[in-house]
Amino acid sequence: VGVAVSAIEPALELYRDRFELVVAHREVVQEQGVEALLLDVGENHVELLAPLGEDTPVGRFLAKQGPGLHHIAYQVEDIEATLEKLKEAGMELIDEHPRRGIRGSLVAFMHPRSSGGVLTEIVQPAGAGSGH
Amino acid sequence: VGVAVSAIEPALELYRDRFELVVAHREVVQEQGVEALLLDVGENHVELLAPLGEDTPVGRFLAKQGPGLHHIAYQVEDIEATLEKLKEAGMELIDEHPRRGIRGSLVAFMHPRSSGGVLTEIVQPAGAGSGH
Repeated sequence: VGVAVSAIEPALELYRDRFELVVAHREVVQEQGVEALLLDVGENHVELLAPLGEDTPVGRFLAKQGPGLHHIAYQVEDIEATLEKLKEAGMELIDEHPRRGIRGSLVAFMHPRSSGGVLTEIVQPAGAGSGH
Repeated sequence: VGVAVSAIEPALELYRDRFELVVAHREVVQEQGVEALLLDVGENHVELLAPLGEDTPVGRFLAKQGPGLHHIAYQVEDIEATLEKLKEAGMELIDEHPRRGIRGSLVAFMHPRSSGGVLTEIVQPAGAGSGH
């Protein structure tokens, strides 16, 4: 689950110090215009997203609706095959082709219009995939 | 992650048929004014929430901002102890005392004001807890 925050440090105080979640990873992802921080929740993550500037997707999200839940991401084994399947199922894609995400992953977003108002992402971790 | 939907059936078409998630549980939770449906995502869940009426928390959420991400829930072992700790840490609670949630769980919500704009829930599954 991606959570949009204005800045990482105060969010860390909330999630790490009060909620006592463990920080798994921190990275500036230029391609997405964010500084991202992964916190472990079981085998899944909460991902804090702070914008690198106002004219970024998360910057515009914050300007429009303030901090809060931003998107949900599902891990897939083969992002190209999954994108193909979603397209065939009539899903509207923001990314027809995968882009680079956190930790060397490949990511693609679906449009909230076709996913019940939820910005939905698929993620293929680095090292996975069928070698397309 | 809780997702507010207008009705369960069309949401099922999206999450079960297109995203191929497995339905773990379905229940009308009168205390929360919702019909809820749990879908497995690894060891965690996406929870679809359809309101039982307009004058319910999810009904008002939908009227205000339409379908989409609603809340995030963390599993805890001892909800009373966790509430105590959160209160001491200065968190603003919607529920000072646990209420009944899905599958016989105990649940309590924190106010988004003190959790970075995110409606945040803690859940003690049925059968857990320290016997307070």
